[in-house]
Amino acid sequence: MRRTSFAEMECSVARTLEVIGEWWTMLVIREAFSGVRRFDDFQGRLGIARNVLAARLQSLVDHGVLERRQYHDRPPRCEYRLTEKGRDLYPVLIAMLTWGDKWTAGEAGPPLRLTHECGHDPEAILVCSHCGAKLDARQVRAERVRPAAAADAG
Amino acid sequence: MRRTSFAEMECSVARTLEVIGEWWTMLVIREAFSGVRRFDDFQGRLGIARNVLAARLQSLVDHGVLERRQYHDRPPRCEYRLTEKGRDLYPVLIAMLTWGDKWTAGEAGPPLRLTHECGHDPEAILVCSHCGAKLDARQVRAERVRPAAAADAG
Repeated sequence: MRRTSFAEMECSVARTLEVIGEWWTMLVIREAFSGVRRFDDFQGRLGIARNVLAARLQSLVDHGVLERRQYHDRPPRCEYRLTEKGRDLYPVLIAMLTWGDKWTAGEAGPPLRLTHECGHDPEAILVCSHCGAKLDARQVRAERVRPAAAADAG
Repeated sequence: MRRTSFAEMECSVARTLEVIGEWWTMLVIREAFSGVRRFDDFQGRLGIARNVLAARLQSLVDHGVLERRQYHDRPPRCEYRLTEKGRDLYPVLIAMLTWGDKWTAGEAGPPLRLTHECGHDPEAILVCSHCGAKLDARQVRAERVRPAAAADAG
């Protein structure tokens, strides 16, 4: 289904999808946030084909979302850790989790409980960093900073 | 690359990806948030093949993210509007936009400027709904509510 690259579009959502939009990628990142670092652990937890996992990890390394570190010489063994760029994906992950908890969890309820260090279950909400009000599409105006390029879909 | 369904996984991130993880889908939702409603307008703005767009729109209608309304009888013409479930994807979209602005915009800077009704450019941040502190992976503990099923990767 992939026919084009989103990276060329002058849109931050499209370019983000270029990095994390590939099938399985966001679940690899989810595992990284829960502390998984080694190939076999990713593989075991995701039940993903090894070649697909290797491609996803390599792509995330290429994009600077994960860094690969060799933790054992003989035989060579690597682990993968989130970079700052990768850790910055936390709001994307949590926004997906929050939506999924509300709209897809069904009668069984959310499978995961998050507890914030303040001691309470947080509902993660998106707020304006200036006034602190909850962000809602109707209160936010979006304007192009530059005219769109001819081939730009964004 | 799609080999399985994420819907079966007991994980709200995976189930969210089942709805919005298909290539192009999040850009269709982006357009819907910017007010696009008609097939030809989605098509023109995204430069997407018509059959792919039709499949994406149908999938979003099937998942209850968009609703289809006939606005003209002869010839029959439909428009697509975000439902409440769809509007609830705003934090996911904005989280992607924020990350892309920071990490993918390059020297030209972000292509879009958001202005909140408070009059300022908001940086969208994710906060704990209880204490208001910015959410950070290190301050949040995730626990399974139920034991994972055998085939569960989540």
